[in-house]
Amino acid sequence: MSTAVAKIGIVTVSDRASRGEYQDEGGPAIRAWLSETLTTPWEGVERLVPDEQPEVEAVLRELADAHGCCLVVTTGGTGPARRDITPEATAAVCDKILDGFGEQMRAVSLKFVPTAILSRQIAGTRGGCLIINLPGKPSAIKDCLDAVFPAVPYCIDLLEGPWLDTDPVRLAAFRPKHAKRPTP
Amino acid sequence: MSTAVAKIGIVTVSDRASRGEYQDEGGPAIRAWLSETLTTPWEGVERLVPDEQPEVEAVLRELADAHGCCLVVTTGGTGPARRDITPEATAAVCDKILDGFGEQMRAVSLKFVPTAILSRQIAGTRGGCLIINLPGKPSAIKDCLDAVFPAVPYCIDLLEGPWLDTDPVRLAAFRPKHAKRPTP
Amino acid sequence: MSTAVAKIGIVTVSDRASRGEYQDEGGPAIRAWLSETLTTPWEGVERLVPDEQPEVEAVLRELADAHGCCLVVTTGGTGPARRDITPEATAAVCDKILDGFGEQMRAVSLKFVPTAILSRQIAGTRGGCLIINLPGKPSAIKDCLDAVFPAVPYCIDLLEGPWLDTDPVRLAAFRPKHAKRPTP
Repeated sequence: MSTAVAKIGIVTVSDRASRGEYQDEGGPAIRAWLSETLTTPWEGVERLVPDEQPEVEAVLRELADAHGCCLVVTTGGTGPARRDITPEATAAVCDKILDGFGEQMRAVSLKFVPTAILSRQIAGTRGGCLIINLPGKPSAIKDCLDAVFPAVPYCIDLLEGPWLDTDPVRLAAFRPKHAKRPTP
Repeated sequence: MSTAVAKIGIVTVSDRASRGEYQDEGGPAIRAWLSETLTTPWEGVERLVPDEQPEVEAVLRELADAHGCCLVVTTGGTGPARRDITPEATAAVCDKILDGFGEQMRAVSLKFVPTAILSRQIAGTRGGCLIINLPGKPSAIKDCLDAVFPAVPYCIDLLEGPWLDTDPVRLAAFRPKHAKRPTP
Repeated sequence: MSTAVAKIGIVTVSDRASRGEYQDEGGPAIRAWLSETLTTPWEGVERLVPDEQPEVEAVLRELADAHGCCLVVTTGGTGPARRDITPEATAAVCDKILDGFGEQMRAVSLKFVPTAILSRQIAGTRGGCLIINLPGKPSAIKDCLDAVFPAVPYCIDLLEGPWLDTDPVRLAAFRPKHAKRPTP
């Protein structure tokens, strides 16, 4: 449990954005959401990569291992199309898959669009790092983060990462009563 | 994107029906549902196979690869019993699994019977073909198709397959606003 | 289908309980729930093991194969923490995974706590034995058993195991109309 500033990786996976044909909107949407929600100091580490599985895997490993991110969120590449490989790259670098994240993100998105079932988003852990796939569309990113983030700070506690606090007016993180902030 | 007639495979997986001891009801129920729902011309390619994994795999490959089906639906063989191997055969031939289909089909079936959690139905893609496992019982087939089919035409667009239209009175297919029918 | 007394394995997976640092509460909670619910004679086979994957696998194999349990329920070790390996051990010994159990247990737990999505509980079959992972906390054990057990007796029928009856006032087991108790 470190008192250092929490590092959070933000990975945009997109052929077009990585070639500059398209302005990345997913990464900035994630950064804005985290800035509004987290009250603990944090540092974002941003990456923009094409939909190539080895490149996505390499970036996830770099952020988890070399940068020591406690959380990495990705945006893009989770659909059924041929070039969509973000979930495969995520599964390849994770030790444990947490099926509940994908289930809940799809359940929430289903309230808006029936095509939510086409999303293959997963989440998992790589050592002490939680990796979560988010959709590409900024409005869907917000819906998914609102749905799953209440469980994220306690998950990072269980992974022995830094203590994260959220603005309770905006989003109440949940911890069981026995969870206690360790004294530094 | 082809202007040819869309081909849809319909596969009944059943030891008893394939031995003629039992009249196949699942295949005809799927054909009837599709005929009532699709307004685009389509051609069904039907198969009846026993609950043998190599035979089910071979038929799925034949329908996806040799026949160029954009969609293959199966009925039967998705329970927990020893002879139920349809999900294993499907997973073995697919490139990508779309967990949202199984989740939603079980969620819908749970409104009717608590044993819906015993169903191991999956869906996935093999190249440009979407393969969906359905239950064996005709009433459950209808419940599942009603639940997931609104997402199927757009999924097939993403797989670069033929444009499918449905009768909106019966079932409204959903496509995002930016989805446009390609000019032939 | 045997007329012998149904054997049910109850496995507590916990480093601390197995070292005696902590009184096991999960195993007794499962036994109490089953005793109140089942009206068919049954015999419990209890085990207490640390969070070591080879030990959990060995106990699951022993209960399914040597003891001929028709059902094995585990408690503990399903979270995202480094020592949580119960789902991995379960998957390693199972022939088939039944995703609907985990989905429904998480959906039910989500009504109580948003951290339910961190649970990696699964269920699956090993030959004629159904194995179900439950959470560690007694109140969550009850919530999960109440949610999934209506489907368990019919699942065991499909696995050709013993006929289980429940007290319908407490929990109504569901079987389709065509399901008939075999004459001994």
